[in-house]
Amino acid sequence: MPENHLNNGNPNYKKLNDLYSIQMAKGQLYETIITTKNVNGFEKNLGNLKESDNLKSDDNDTNGSVNAAPIGVLCKNSKQIVLYLYEGTHTVNNIHHHDYFIVNITQNPIIFTKSTLEDLSDEYFEYYHEIPFLKDADAFFVCQVNKIKEITKNNDLGSSKMSIVTADVEEVVQLNSHAIPLNRGIYAVIESLIHYTRIELADNETRTSYWARINEMNRVVKKVGSLQEKEALEEIIKEIKENFKDLN
Amino acid sequence: MPENHLNNGNPNYKKLNDLYSIQMAKGQLYETIITTKNVNGFEKNLGNLKESDNLKSDDNDTNGSVNAAPIGVLCKNSKQIVLYLYEGTHTVNNIHHHDYFIVNITQNPIIFTKSTLEDLSDEYFEYYHEIPFLKDADAFFVCQVNKIKEITKNNDLGSSKMSIVTADVEEVVQLNSHAIPLNRGIYAVIESLIHYTRIELADNETRTSYWARINEMNRVVKKVGSLQEKEALEEIIKEIKENFKDLN
Repeated sequence: MPENHLNNGNPNYKKLNDLYSIQMAKGQLYETIITTKNVNGFEKNLGNLKESDNLKSDDNDTNGSVNAAPIGVLCKNSKQIVLYLYEGTHTVNNIHHHDYFIVNITQNPIIFTKSTLEDLSDEYFEYYHEIPFLKDADAFFVCQVNKIKEITKNNDLGSSKMSIVTADVEEVVQLNSHAIPLNRGIYAVIESLIHYTRIELADNETRTSYWARINEMNRVVKKVGSLQEKEALEEIIKEIKENFKDLN
Repeated sequence: MPENHLNNGNPNYKKLNDLYSIQMAKGQLYETIITTKNVNGFEKNLGNLKESDNLKSDDNDTNGSVNAAPIGVLCKNSKQIVLYLYEGTHTVNNIHHHDYFIVNITQNPIIFTKSTLEDLSDEYFEYYHEIPFLKDADAFFVCQVNKIKEITKNNDLGSSKMSIVTADVEEVVQLNSHAIPLNRGIYAVIESLIHYTRIELADNETRTSYWARINEMNRVVKKVGSLQEKEALEEIIKEIKENFKDLN
């Protein structure tokens, strides 16, 4: 049913083989929107409280409300992804419970912003085999949980529990032939180059702040980027160190 | 000749109608590489000095060496672009002299880095109607200068002369069907959202630095981005101002 709906009238609708078909590459991390069915509608949408009260008990784990959250997705190989999720979020609860979820590929700034600041309203969603996805996505893929490992991560603000979710990619659907997954690597290179060209004319304080930004961009590229992007940052940093001995 | 060469063996080679066919949009600014023939080989490549000395005088304006530079390109409409170029650079001299140049669409981090830090070696280039372009580009377009306006721009470091070049797009060539012009708008939105999610837990000093970054990203989006990206930044800034009255 939902599949036919997708197909009808969309000349770009196409099932693809794997993640490499939507230009993902092994070892890179992409900014995506993950959509899931909520385990319990109560916590999500108080407006649905009354309706949920009337549901039969075996339907009681969901009132049909859905969740969309911006999440970084690591491409492990052509058919597997890895997520690092903080405990206590809707996404991690829903994935634990339902086993299936959808990763949406989009570059729509409003969707990223709304899903971070508030909740996306119902009209943003459609369903594929009963799993919600974003109508406006350029592509999406259906994932099934393969394993979940729980870890404790220490950072500046103390320690937090995280779930490392490995999931198998079951189906990849293209909705727009220009679907490109969002990766921050090339932007980190461009931003570093912009700082590089200004560093020579800058006063000491500004130079130090540019240098800090370039090191931050190096951290980003190491986390999300391609080998070529990592190589580019190494070149930029080497060049600056040679020219400005006081920076390190 | 070069056109046939492109065509041969590249199933993605295609002539396109205009800038909108390579996903450019009116009013947005893209990170590109502009390739030009050098006016005078002497200043470019001292190794060629002897050879150039031997050229006949009517060939004397070029020794065949080429220039590649990372340049922001504003899409004015489907068939016109605008460049803001500092005086004294190779690119501006070459464009003044030759009238024709090529804008290359690529996301190759090594090409952006090498063309900023040093010069690209000859093997990076091919020629299209005698104008150099980058072999590795995903797409390129040939431009002819329409008008050049010279202005003086004042900034922190004093004033600098600039040329505002308006150019007509003569031909658009796709070399890779996934050609996407690089625009920093969505990246600025994503970076702002990352800071937004951390701002609540941050101490005062860190919060102020996140706020400064978000304002910088707002400046970037206003310069290069789409209406939706500008709207996204406005939403983020509004939300922060409502929650943190001390920031402004």
